[in-house]
Amino acid sequence: MSAPPSNASNVKELLCELCRLFYQQGWVSGTGGGISIREGDRVTMAPSGVQKERLRPEDLFELDVDGRVLKAPEGNAKLSACAPLFFHAFELRDAGAVIHSHSMNAMLATLVFGDELRVTHLEMMKGIRGTGYHDELVVPILENTAHECDLADAMADAMRRYPKTFAVLVRRHGVYVWGRDWVEAKTHAECYDYLFEAAVKMKQLGFDPSSAPERNPE
Amino acid sequence: MSAPPSNASNVKELLCELCRLFYQQGWVSGTGGGISIREGDRVTMAPSGVQKERLRPEDLFELDVDGRVLKAPEGNAKLSACAPLFFHAFELRDAGAVIHSHSMNAMLATLVFGDELRVTHLEMMKGIRGTGYHDELVVPILENTAHECDLADAMADAMRRYPKTFAVLVRRHGVYVWGRDWVEAKTHAECYDYLFEAAVKMKQLGFDPSSAPERNPE
Amino acid sequence: MSAPPSNASNVKELLCELCRLFYQQGWVSGTGGGISIREGDRVTMAPSGVQKERLRPEDLFELDVDGRVLKAPEGNAKLSACAPLFFHAFELRDAGAVIHSHSMNAMLATLVFGDELRVTHLEMMKGIRGTGYHDELVVPILENTAHECDLADAMADAMRRYPKTFAVLVRRHGVYVWGRDWVEAKTHAECYDYLFEAAVKMKQLGFDPSSAPERNPE
Amino acid sequence: MSAPPSNASNVKELLCELCRLFYQQGWVSGTGGGISIREGDRVTMAPSGVQKERLRPEDLFELDVDGRVLKAPEGNAKLSACAPLFFHAFELRDAGAVIHSHSMNAMLATLVFGDELRVTHLEMMKGIRGTGYHDELVVPILENTAHECDLADAMADAMRRYPKTFAVLVRRHGVYVWGRDWVEAKTHAECYDYLFEAAVKMKQLGFDPSSAPERNPE
Repeated sequence: MSAPPSNASNVKELLCELCRLFYQQGWVSGTGGGISIREGDRVTMAPSGVQKERLRPEDLFELDVDGRVLKAPEGNAKLSACAPLFFHAFELRDAGAVIHSHSMNAMLATLVFGDELRVTHLEMMKGIRGTGYHDELVVPILENTAHECDLADAMADAMRRYPKTFAVLVRRHGVYVWGRDWVEAKTHAECYDYLFEAAVKMKQLGFDPSSAPERNPE
Repeated sequence: MSAPPSNASNVKELLCELCRLFYQQGWVSGTGGGISIREGDRVTMAPSGVQKERLRPEDLFELDVDGRVLKAPEGNAKLSACAPLFFHAFELRDAGAVIHSHSMNAMLATLVFGDELRVTHLEMMKGIRGTGYHDELVVPILENTAHECDLADAMADAMRRYPKTFAVLVRRHGVYVWGRDWVEAKTHAECYDYLFEAAVKMKQLGFDPSSAPERNPE
Repeated sequence: MSAPPSNASNVKELLCELCRLFYQQGWVSGTGGGISIREGDRVTMAPSGVQKERLRPEDLFELDVDGRVLKAPEGNAKLSACAPLFFHAFELRDAGAVIHSHSMNAMLATLVFGDELRVTHLEMMKGIRGTGYHDELVVPILENTAHECDLADAMADAMRRYPKTFAVLVRRHGVYVWGRDWVEAKTHAECYDYLFEAAVKMKQLGFDPSSAPERNPE
Repeated sequence: MSAPPSNASNVKELLCELCRLFYQQGWVSGTGGGISIREGDRVTMAPSGVQKERLRPEDLFELDVDGRVLKAPEGNAKLSACAPLFFHAFELRDAGAVIHSHSMNAMLATLVFGDELRVTHLEMMKGIRGTGYHDELVVPILENTAHECDLADAMADAMRRYPKTFAVLVRRHGVYVWGRDWVEAKTHAECYDYLFEAAVKMKQLGFDPSSAPERNPE
């Protein structure tokens, strides 16, 4: 269940299945968002600007870890403009999978925070590797750019400056989330999305998600 | 995946499948809304006042581009009152597909804006052909009428006056969205719906979706 | 597609299918809510207090139009306490199907209105038989009772006093919706639910759903 | 339909099916939450930290009622840290199933109430065994802890002090809900979740969910 698939056709089917799931969750509507999975030296990635929920295994790109295309789908598919962002997570953070989501929760969370989203004392924080309930979870927020490729340097910089985060938010855009393999990346993505939703709703209800609750018996 | 289907039975099955999807998204509940697809000279359209998520290929109308019925479903099915609106998009904007949605997001968006919805600096704007992140996306809002057919002239007028839009909102009603083929129409519909939702939620959170953010490093 | 099924096993399968759909929409969670279908002299109804989304045809009751049980499911199933309410719609309003929903939208709508919910100038009103866009749609709101059967007299009274409504709301509880057959009852239920949601959200956004918009060109 | 399954493979398949359902409802995202079912002396439980919606029967633990593992899944699966909490419900309240949900509704409800959530005059309260419409439904709220096992004593204490509740909320975390068998536990979980959502939305709309409505004719 939790082991990553061990051959090319499996990982491609898995990637298509996950895209259908993310579509149902509203993370990849309008052809936006996606996921890239790295297994050892081989990276699998969806093309740019296509309906993610309708991907078939033969639509996917295969690349090596240096970003060279090993196998391109037939037709005029273009590699995603997110590719450099995904590769930064593979190289700088040893990620095995990166999810890019246009979740409304992530987008709204970038509006109500400044350079960093900070939350604390929420059980779902425990789903992020290395984070406990009483910690402060910090997610850097980058300013968005006209072209996705222009985010790459800022993304690499954020990944280096925030070694404990597994997510980088992009203002008025969405979020990049990663993990050591697809299972951890998906788990992280679900936990972060819950925390983004919680942070926005807490603000609407008059609570500060960045502050420890006043009444805290421990 | 992205190529439109090339024969009549395929396009009819596709139209039924898309209606099921739109129903799940809340765009065509209560028999409202729908989609029409044009392939060359042939237009496929659902009848009026029927449950869109339960359509079968044999329930659909086939028309020529002048709106003449080539093939009607058995029984007493009536052509949709939206037909003239759909044909305006085919003729004036060379659309290959038009989606009409009663999405709550679209309806609420028409309440919080006047004659035009304006948003800017939202990544999902990039999913609309010809629109960039720093642009201003403008969607005209028509006043609703007692009978859908009475919208036709105002719709044609809006399509001429706003050559960059691929959507026209109708006050307290919903939205018409189109694209060069069904894939682009669906992508546009998903992006616009996200933007309508974002605009309403931004207003609720105290942000003006029409204004560029104050802190904008580019 | 729109014709009601013509034999007992069909109508039972249909009723189970509709309950699964209503469960997905949040109308019948926690064993609440349901649907009853009348075909001529025969009425089909779900038992009380069971998981509506897991019903099988053999779990259903068959009754005559006077409410006598013709066929009961095996075991100790109890007839729904809603039965008298459903029969009032069959008798007084010639309904072919009645849907009882615990929708959160319906429940919240009963909080923000007094004895009647009133909305106007919303396109989805057209989905209710006999109602146009410029009309005022009025739905009576009954006070809830400790036991569902105690609602019966007030329900019958409301059905007589509001001959144009196809729905009766019950305070802090939900709604009963009917139509001439299951298709119309389901269409009405979807349109009313949309209108309840719209009315609550309009209030939250500062708009009065009971008033015609100030700027109305017609 | 309502009878619990009578052999080990059935109960394991059921548990996996329910986890898929709870995932769709947002109760067990990010590997959090879950369900444990007791049939007589045998308890079935999911491992900790795994994707609940992807569980297979062979992934589950079997335990006796004293918490001893009778059968562990292959590999390095760990027993859930919730296990002691589940067993308290089995022992102290004779539960046949316990559901642990990270529902956003439950989490937000713990923010807007103090030591106890109190609601009244809501029809869905009737779905909780022993509770009527005019009663007051009280759910204790425990303070969350860094480690789930540290909740066990407070949970046992709350189960003893609140003999009428079938749920215990945990601040900024979620809820534990039980029933005499899986059907009642699921029904309770759905009703409580509705009530949590209603309570938060009522507060947002300016209504006090703890107070009887002023206008109450009975």
